[in-house]
Amino acid sequence: MRLFQLRGGNMLYAVIMAGGSGTRFWPLSRERRPKQTLPLTSNKSLLRETIERILPVVKKDNILIVTVRSQRRRITSLLPDIPPENIIVEPYARNTAAAIGLAALHVKRRLKGGIMVVLPADHTISDSKAFQGVIRYGRDIVKHEDRLLTLGLKPHYPETGYGYIEAGKKIKQKQKVETHKHSTRTIERFIEKPSLSKAKELLKSSNYYWNGGIFIWKAETILGEIDTYMPELSSGLARIDKSLDNKSSSRTLSKIYKSFSKVSIDNGIMEKTSLGGVIPCNIGWNDLGSWLALSELVKMDENGNCIIGNDIAIASEGCLVHNSRGLTALVGVKDLIVVTTRDATLVCSKKNSQDVKKVVELLKARGLDKYL
Amino acid sequence: MRLFQLRGGNMLYAVIMAGGSGTRFWPLSRERRPKQTLPLTSNKSLLRETIERILPVVKKDNILIVTVRSQRRRITSLLPDIPPENIIVEPYARNTAAAIGLAALHVKRRLKGGIMVVLPADHTISDSKAFQGVIRYGRDIVKHEDRLLTLGLKPHYPETGYGYIEAGKKIKQKQKVETHKHSTRTIERFIEKPSLSKAKELLKSSNYYWNGGIFIWKAETILGEIDTYMPELSSGLARIDKSLDNKSSSRTLSKIYKSFSKVSIDNGIMEKTSLGGVIPCNIGWNDLGSWLALSELVKMDENGNCIIGNDIAIASEGCLVHNSRGLTALVGVKDLIVVTTRDATLVCSKKNSQDVKKVVELLKARGLDKYL
Repeated sequence: MRLFQLRGGNMLYAVIMAGGSGTRFWPLSRERRPKQTLPLTSNKSLLRETIERILPVVKKDNILIVTVRSQRRRITSLLPDIPPENIIVEPYARNTAAAIGLAALHVKRRLKGGIMVVLPADHTISDSKAFQGVIRYGRDIVKHEDRLLTLGLKPHYPETGYGYIEAGKKIKQKQKVETHKHSTRTIERFIEKPSLSKAKELLKSSNYYWNGGIFIWKAETILGEIDTYMPELSSGLARIDKSLDNKSSSRTLSKIYKSFSKVSIDNGIMEKTSLGGVIPCNIGWNDLGSWLALSELVKMDENGNCIIGNDIAIASEGCLVHNSRGLTALVGVKDLIVVTTRDATLVCSKKNSQDVKKVVELLKARGLDKYL
Repeated sequence: MRLFQLRGGNMLYAVIMAGGSGTRFWPLSRERRPKQTLPLTSNKSLLRETIERILPVVKKDNILIVTVRSQRRRITSLLPDIPPENIIVEPYARNTAAAIGLAALHVKRRLKGGIMVVLPADHTISDSKAFQGVIRYGRDIVKHEDRLLTLGLKPHYPETGYGYIEAGKKIKQKQKVETHKHSTRTIERFIEKPSLSKAKELLKSSNYYWNGGIFIWKAETILGEIDTYMPELSSGLARIDKSLDNKSSSRTLSKIYKSFSKVSIDNGIMEKTSLGGVIPCNIGWNDLGSWLALSELVKMDENGNCIIGNDIAIASEGCLVHNSRGLTALVGVKDLIVVTTRDATLVCSKKNSQDVKKVVELLKARGLDKYL
């Protein structure tokens, strides 16, 4: 039994997607200090939490981090324990299909038949044990079958900001995976962010799950499907693969990568492949997509305020306060997100928390780069 | 004519009351950085504006500043052009009757028959010329008569935060002051902050004026009335007067001053004296009693926001923003006052602007002295 676990662990690679800019957590998140590097839910960064959560299943040498050039320095300094060669730097941000393809090359080169679990670096999962159980189950499935598996997170309220997956029939396993209580179901379709009434309808059925962007597959399987459905990306990746041992590999990577289209792995592969499968699970997942999402995770006082440290609330309710430089005082306000950093203050109504990215767009348009 | 003006100027002293703490402008106003020392309406402090406004009527050597110990250093450094002996330091804050009595001692000692105009340091007056005209008129009246004159500011909306003065009949002048268009009326009564319906009623009549705390009288006249109506203060002031040339004057001042009751000049003298008179006038006066009062003076954009510098407002209206350290962004909020300083952020609904002082009280109660 122990031998089996070790072998499974050695076959499994974690590909942690840490290239996001997280503009919706401005002013705390910045271009060089993106969301995944912030300690939003504990005193550890989301990235560090993600690594620690997968470590019981994947050995440290098998953890690969995919990031972009502007974040390389901060990520490297945050992760002194990760071997530098495990940090894969995209020369340009080209969405998830390219990033995952590039990571798959690296996994394939390291181990023929290597399995990879793709993990966003900036989500939270409250039930680590359940999460590790699902990953072990998925790993054991794809070891024996060429499947592209995705986690389907059991929804518990009608969220309109997430994508949903419709799950179909159970897929019979070629080889029984005895020790797990999980199952795999076919993917019937992907549903983009629904309206509230639609989301309520989806919640009633037991066939719809949140799409969390967590995947498990063999590197060769995803590269094969990229070859079928995204031939331009595939040929680019093949050229990158050939160049990786050359002196000029970095220049080749830049040149080819620049030409890649910005396509998500969902649009590019998952919606088209016949190898897809969804593993329904309930692991306390939250994508932390906005200050509002964070405010729903943190502890509130009797007035529904999330007050940290010395901050003061007078005749105020339902507010989230963060001040990394001093003290915030609220007087007579309701349902606000108030964030103060060294050089910027955000005051946003909770109902507009998705619009924080508009602030970042406006700052860019006005050339106020020092606040980006 | 010129000779007359000069003589008038030499007889007139300005007593600028600069001891207020201005807690309602927290976090910009602090114990050692009170409201009157802040550049709220221009790039000059309110105190400096007050001095410059009176300078055409009072020569610089005749400007006396009354302040408290904790503010002496900042006031002195802000006013390098005012002779140090003109800065009168109260050892304790004892409200306006004591402060004015102390200042009157100094004026009387400098010039027998000296006239003093009492000016709060932290108000704004938009029509300086009209203001100077009223002061000249009042000076010319009290030169010939033992009157305690106060300015009655013509109200233009039903403010509930101010005191009102009911004006009675015109007072016949013993000696005609030919060059002025003003008149003096009897003071029938003082009305404390009225309800909104009462304030609306007062506004309809032409007999009610805002009480702005601007007084004109001879030093001997006010000291005489203090002797009549506040004998304890009077005898204390007499002992201070005697000690002023001694080495131990500062110790005597402290000892006696500590024993004074905290009484306003309105309660202690103006409501009782038979020498009172009100000069109705219209000089664009505003006591800047809160962030809301300030927001009504500053220029707004088309959404009713007062945005200074680079600050950003998305889907927001009616907000006042001040950030002395960087940039503020508003998203989807309405009628807020948002003030950020080096170490503190205030987010206050406009309707609660009077409650900002409660923040200061709470900070005191919690021992968070560094934010006071």
